[in-house]
Amino acid sequence: MYTALHPIGETGAAAPRVARVAIAGATGYAGQELLRLLARHPLVTITAAMSSGTAASERRLPALSRLWAGAITPFARETLLRDADVVFLALPDASAAELAPDLADAGVRIVDLSGAFRLRDAASRARWYPETRRLPDGVAYGLTELERAAVARARLVANPGCYPTAALLAIAPLLAAGLLAPGSDIVVDAKSGVSGAGKTPSERTHFSECHGSISAYGVFDHRHGAEIEQGVGDLHALTFVPHLVPLDRGILATIYLRLQPDATRGGNGEAAVADVYQRAYADATFVRLTGSSLPEIKHVAHTNFCDLGWRVDPSGRAVLVSAIDNLVKGAAGQAVQNMNVMLGLDETMGLL
Amino acid sequence: MYTALHPIGETGAAAPRVARVAIAGATGYAGQELLRLLARHPLVTITAAMSSGTAASERRLPALSRLWAGAITPFARETLLRDADVVFLALPDASAAELAPDLADAGVRIVDLSGAFRLRDAASRARWYPETRRLPDGVAYGLTELERAAVARARLVANPGCYPTAALLAIAPLLAAGLLAPGSDIVVDAKSGVSGAGKTPSERTHFSECHGSISAYGVFDHRHGAEIEQGVGDLHALTFVPHLVPLDRGILATIYLRLQPDATRGGNGEAAVADVYQRAYADATFVRLTGSSLPEIKHVAHTNFCDLGWRVDPSGRAVLVSAIDNLVKGAAGQAVQNMNVMLGLDETMGLL
Amino acid sequence: MYTALHPIGETGAAAPRVARVAIAGATGYAGQELLRLLARHPLVTITAAMSSGTAASERRLPALSRLWAGAITPFARETLLRDADVVFLALPDASAAELAPDLADAGVRIVDLSGAFRLRDAASRARWYPETRRLPDGVAYGLTELERAAVARARLVANPGCYPTAALLAIAPLLAAGLLAPGSDIVVDAKSGVSGAGKTPSERTHFSECHGSISAYGVFDHRHGAEIEQGVGDLHALTFVPHLVPLDRGILATIYLRLQPDATRGGNGEAAVADVYQRAYADATFVRLTGSSLPEIKHVAHTNFCDLGWRVDPSGRAVLVSAIDNLVKGAAGQAVQNMNVMLGLDETMGLL
Amino acid sequence: MYTALHPIGETGAAAPRVARVAIAGATGYAGQELLRLLARHPLVTITAAMSSGTAASERRLPALSRLWAGAITPFARETLLRDADVVFLALPDASAAELAPDLADAGVRIVDLSGAFRLRDAASRARWYPETRRLPDGVAYGLTELERAAVARARLVANPGCYPTAALLAIAPLLAAGLLAPGSDIVVDAKSGVSGAGKTPSERTHFSECHGSISAYGVFDHRHGAEIEQGVGDLHALTFVPHLVPLDRGILATIYLRLQPDATRGGNGEAAVADVYQRAYADATFVRLTGSSLPEIKHVAHTNFCDLGWRVDPSGRAVLVSAIDNLVKGAAGQAVQNMNVMLGLDETMGLL
Repeated sequence: MYTALHPIGETGAAAPRVARVAIAGATGYAGQELLRLLARHPLVTITAAMSSGTAASERRLPALSRLWAGAITPFARETLLRDADVVFLALPDASAAELAPDLADAGVRIVDLSGAFRLRDAASRARWYPETRRLPDGVAYGLTELERAAVARARLVANPGCYPTAALLAIAPLLAAGLLAPGSDIVVDAKSGVSGAGKTPSERTHFSECHGSISAYGVFDHRHGAEIEQGVGDLHALTFVPHLVPLDRGILATIYLRLQPDATRGGNGEAAVADVYQRAYADATFVRLTGSSLPEIKHVAHTNFCDLGWRVDPSGRAVLVSAIDNLVKGAAGQAVQNMNVMLGLDETMGLL
Repeated sequence: MYTALHPIGETGAAAPRVARVAIAGATGYAGQELLRLLARHPLVTITAAMSSGTAASERRLPALSRLWAGAITPFARETLLRDADVVFLALPDASAAELAPDLADAGVRIVDLSGAFRLRDAASRARWYPETRRLPDGVAYGLTELERAAVARARLVANPGCYPTAALLAIAPLLAAGLLAPGSDIVVDAKSGVSGAGKTPSERTHFSECHGSISAYGVFDHRHGAEIEQGVGDLHALTFVPHLVPLDRGILATIYLRLQPDATRGGNGEAAVADVYQRAYADATFVRLTGSSLPEIKHVAHTNFCDLGWRVDPSGRAVLVSAIDNLVKGAAGQAVQNMNVMLGLDETMGLL
Repeated sequence: MYTALHPIGETGAAAPRVARVAIAGATGYAGQELLRLLARHPLVTITAAMSSGTAASERRLPALSRLWAGAITPFARETLLRDADVVFLALPDASAAELAPDLADAGVRIVDLSGAFRLRDAASRARWYPETRRLPDGVAYGLTELERAAVARARLVANPGCYPTAALLAIAPLLAAGLLAPGSDIVVDAKSGVSGAGKTPSERTHFSECHGSISAYGVFDHRHGAEIEQGVGDLHALTFVPHLVPLDRGILATIYLRLQPDATRGGNGEAAVADVYQRAYADATFVRLTGSSLPEIKHVAHTNFCDLGWRVDPSGRAVLVSAIDNLVKGAAGQAVQNMNVMLGLDETMGLL
Repeated sequence: MYTALHPIGETGAAAPRVARVAIAGATGYAGQELLRLLARHPLVTITAAMSSGTAASERRLPALSRLWAGAITPFARETLLRDADVVFLALPDASAAELAPDLADAGVRIVDLSGAFRLRDAASRARWYPETRRLPDGVAYGLTELERAAVARARLVANPGCYPTAALLAIAPLLAAGLLAPGSDIVVDAKSGVSGAGKTPSERTHFSECHGSISAYGVFDHRHGAEIEQGVGDLHALTFVPHLVPLDRGILATIYLRLQPDATRGGNGEAAVADVYQRAYADATFVRLTGSSLPEIKHVAHTNFCDLGWRVDPSGRAVLVSAIDNLVKGAAGQAVQNMNVMLGLDETMGLL
């Protein structure tokens, strides 16, 4: 996908010295997960954890007591510029769009968890992220397993959306290997826990509206659909429908596509998929292949794993199932993974 | 408890003609449940269902499509005065406190689901419901099984709180029968579904805050504690602690008290309790006695039942368990039950 | 679909006399729901409610206390033959396969909630329901809205599976109207509450395995897939994947298909679908069309409704969403609806 | 409580060499949690993880893939004797009762997660754990914060029950400080997630029975009641009622007791409690005092923390709230904590 416009080189690879990191937006669900992960990372010091919320109550994080000794402080741009080697932005799209280019210009390296810099096509970005007025130099799309080299060199890593992470880790290798039937449709039916909708209370996230219910939303009209399409390209029509399900954390994406006839000749479609995945993910600690024993959210909750399973019928119809924790591999965990790659550290550090 | 100050007589008892009813506050959780129940009541016509919410989206109730043919309309005091024999108020306390006395003065009979008129002690009411400036004539406390005669005569029925309904149906008969050890403590540990916190989104009712969690709240400081104390009287210290649990509908109250020694002589404490309950609830269709096989919320959800079970040990310590659906027996169902009594109808009409 | 082999005529249509009904398998989840519905049906008397379970504890149904005055009795074939005009079978497939033909031969009318008689193709039936050795005369497939005439005449109604009910009510009218692109694929991604897996405890239905998780199962290998294919026919390849989600009751089916170009010319695909559904379901009280405002399980839980919504993009890709309560419209409710049709009663009696 | 009969001395204190540990019963919920914790413990090697289950499917633990590289093996007593410095028993009571004494005799140190050795009174043990025929030498009760010295010397640590852990960490310090009113009653109302009921499927743990419901069980008849009484002593009558609530992991115990008048003079009851706890838990990393801001399960889930909060009214009535994760601090986490103490390691190693 993206190529880093201005590669930074291998500066991060040099040394396991302790990096100073700051978090802007530390009290949202992704921000808290970042704090939890970074607080136990052996080669990182959290120099600032900021929130723009003004209520004192918003600054209390009782779950993190004794896990992280710091305090949430008000937002302060200068601190980000002065005290951090890497800044994590867990902010609304508009705030990240405004803040990130200046930070990048000043030489701060950034992992941005918003969507502001994920789409490289200008027209698409203007539609879905109109607040993004300019891209800093050196942007990489941070789907780590598929973009390691670009991430290593990047000044700003656009951390992928949770749905695109689950979908593209399943689809991209098969596509790259030429396994899909030419011109065939792809359907991504994704089910997400409610934490994916963010921490701000709303009717949609009210317990009594979610409990005992499931709803589809954003049909033909979701920014993550555009992000998945960016990864899939123009040769296949993609239909993406996200659903809200009554659980807190996790995404299960069920993906429907057709393999090209050669791939499934002799009924060996499942073996063909297995072969592609094994090669694509030979070095990927965080992608676990479960084969025909399909993934479940329970197995990946609170981890940075993406579990991938698949079934193929003799006619070439394939069902892929991908499971992640939306707050870890779908947000904070992948952000830390990207930071590790940017700093030249072992990709899994602090994440197992 | 309450006695009706100005009994209305048996006017309602006359005839099974169709009564005109209106609901003020029809889109909250209790209001919707009222609509559902009243729409299928054989001797009632809903003449108005009002909401002060201005957004059109708040007036859509897709779950009630084909069950109720009407439309939610803006709040209009004149309609309540003109078109209703009985008005249900499912409003915030302050709104009910302001509206109810005028309606009552104008001769409209009222079932008020707010707390504004539940406390008869002026000082207690001033503390917990400071917006209630005056009581209309003819107020009854609508714990139906224990107050049928007063409800029948009442101009305004103060429909009990959900927690007091569950607690007092268990405690009051034992107290009235002199079964409690003099001066002994009473503990009410109540667990409620999240719909009890109302429909307005808040951090507390956010799915991700409730799912997988339980929290105690309002310890020594909850209006329903005062309401339960009103029913218990001064001879026993009452400790009431409500908890929010991750389910939508239902309350389970576990009640700890001590029986007086005579009652449990020979290890027959459970039989003594059974005897009291059987006499108290001989005519009560909606109170089901489960004995030592303790109630569960699942068995009362979506019904107007209160299930009561109990265990007593040889030393006289008793554990009572009471289960209701907070939106039905704890709100809308009991309101309809009270309306039935006010109108001289069979108490169970429209509720089984 | 099915045509009744030996139409029974309009005997049931004659009179609103009270029908005697019996339930074999009354303590499973569908059986209990049948009891609840039939107990309040105005023109039915439950003459027997049987269970083959031997433990006394299995015969206690505390939720039904005061709603149904009868008792669960051991299974007795003679009682079914002697005391019932209509017998509901809520039994395992093998038991229903063995019992139903004899009952039907003896002139008892049957609503069978098992799968034993749902597939009319002998080869398919032999694969999925090998215990079904013979079909009685007069079988109808009981997807009521689409098969009313056949159901009215039937001796045995094969009540549809829960997934096929949700899927076929959405797909069948579009197919019949010629709206689908010729030869296009259909994907049915269905999410079901855990009660659909039945009452027998298993690792799969253990609370701790389901809570906080979602799993796909039965990919390319589920009996309900064969049942949906029977309704869809041979002209479209159907991929059906059911999922277990952490809620008790309800199915949401998300259906992906392509409309033929003529239908969507001028971007009017949604109107074309609306038009077909409105005609197909003009007389169907239990099918509610929600248009582009998509259905949610919460709105249909504990009801016999099937809510249908849809979105179509300019290129003709369509997403249909269908929601039912799996125990009501997906089982016991539709069974009572079918009984009403068999007896010539108003289809909705006892169900609103 | 317990004193170690034959202290082992400070052998473990010597050195941070790597200890060999084995788990008997590694596929239950507590066993899996042990595997997860021990696999990332820096000074431990898992030499065996055994299960007596024979089905291959029971030996697959997909959630632990890439977190633990070993395999589940059949139960083998010799391996425990030969290859382990510390053996964790996560077995049924009867199995642990039979196995532990022999292992202890052979010099293996044991952390036993069953109840077999928790009760020191022979009569009480005979009632609740009749399979326990003899105690090995050197048993300690492993409520770590209160029994560190005994645990350090123990040959066998009886890891406490989940409910007693939550209850006694709250009650014991107040009792020891003489803060309770003499002879006053203590009520422990505990709410537990369903994983506490174990992994074996049953009607009680069926998702559809638990979802949307709460039930009390074991009133006046629960083994954990005896265990809490052992910690409380004879001077106060204890009533313990556990409840099953619809979540997976966690216990919230709400505890009702009366402080003696001196302690609350001047309305300073909350300060008196705070003072006692601060002294008792000054060195306890895993006990977090939340004061009047009461604990919630969400904050302790997946951690080894016990959060304690409290409220006291002017008359001396106190409400204590204690929250733990039943599988971590209530089982596997405390077991590892005890192992750390036995080996002379930092108590928190591998647990933060």
